[in-house]
Amino acid sequence: MSRKPVVRMAELEIDPDRLDAYRALLTEEIEASVRLEVGVLSLSAVSIRDAPNRIRILEVYADKGAYEAHLRTPHFLKYKSETAGMVTSLTLIEVDPISMRAKP
Amino acid sequence: MSRKPVVRMAELEIDPDRLDAYRALLTEEIEASVRLEVGVLSLSAVSIRDAPNRIRILEVYADKGAYEAHLRTPHFLKYKSETAGMVTSLTLIEVDPISMRAKP
Repeated sequence: MSRKPVVRMAELEIDPDRLDAYRALLTEEIEASVRLEVGVLSLSAVSIRDAPNRIRILEVYADKGAYEAHLRTPHFLKYKSETAGMVTSLTLIEVDPISMRAKP
Repeated sequence: MSRKPVVRMAELEIDPDRLDAYRALLTEEIEASVRLEVGVLSLSAVSIRDAPNRIRILEVYADKGAYEAHLRTPHFLKYKSETAGMVTSLTLIEVDPISMRAKP
């Protein structure tokens, strides 16, 4: 299995009436994933200022195995099932890192 | 001046004939910014797999002052002038963080 990092961007649209509940579930899922999964390197979720129900998430996993393991975790499955009725559009974009740097 | 983090997403399209040169200049600029500027918290640049001349950059600054100082640094000004003829489209999207977590 490739040891290359897997980087992905998700673009979501959320039912505006469910936005507060969605944000809480997403925050919980991100915090659990980075805390509990050794192969989840970073998850960065933002909302577009002029359209706060449009969300983008930049996801960085250590490798393909880490990404596939993430999809089977209880916290991800909870997020996925509890937000299913809130997400009106989901686009997954495969991306390749050019340079990713953060303060230690 | 507000101490709130400033988060921004840039979407760029690069002249495909200049892509290698652009990527080198962007990488140099990102590494210098995170290393030299205390207020640049992270810069994450990726290319879209199916259209590698389409670049997205997620930028996180400590506050508005840090962002404004970044725009005046020699490494940013060098990047800006040297890539000016390579960038065919630039869209800046103001975003607000929901949750941003990374491994320490």
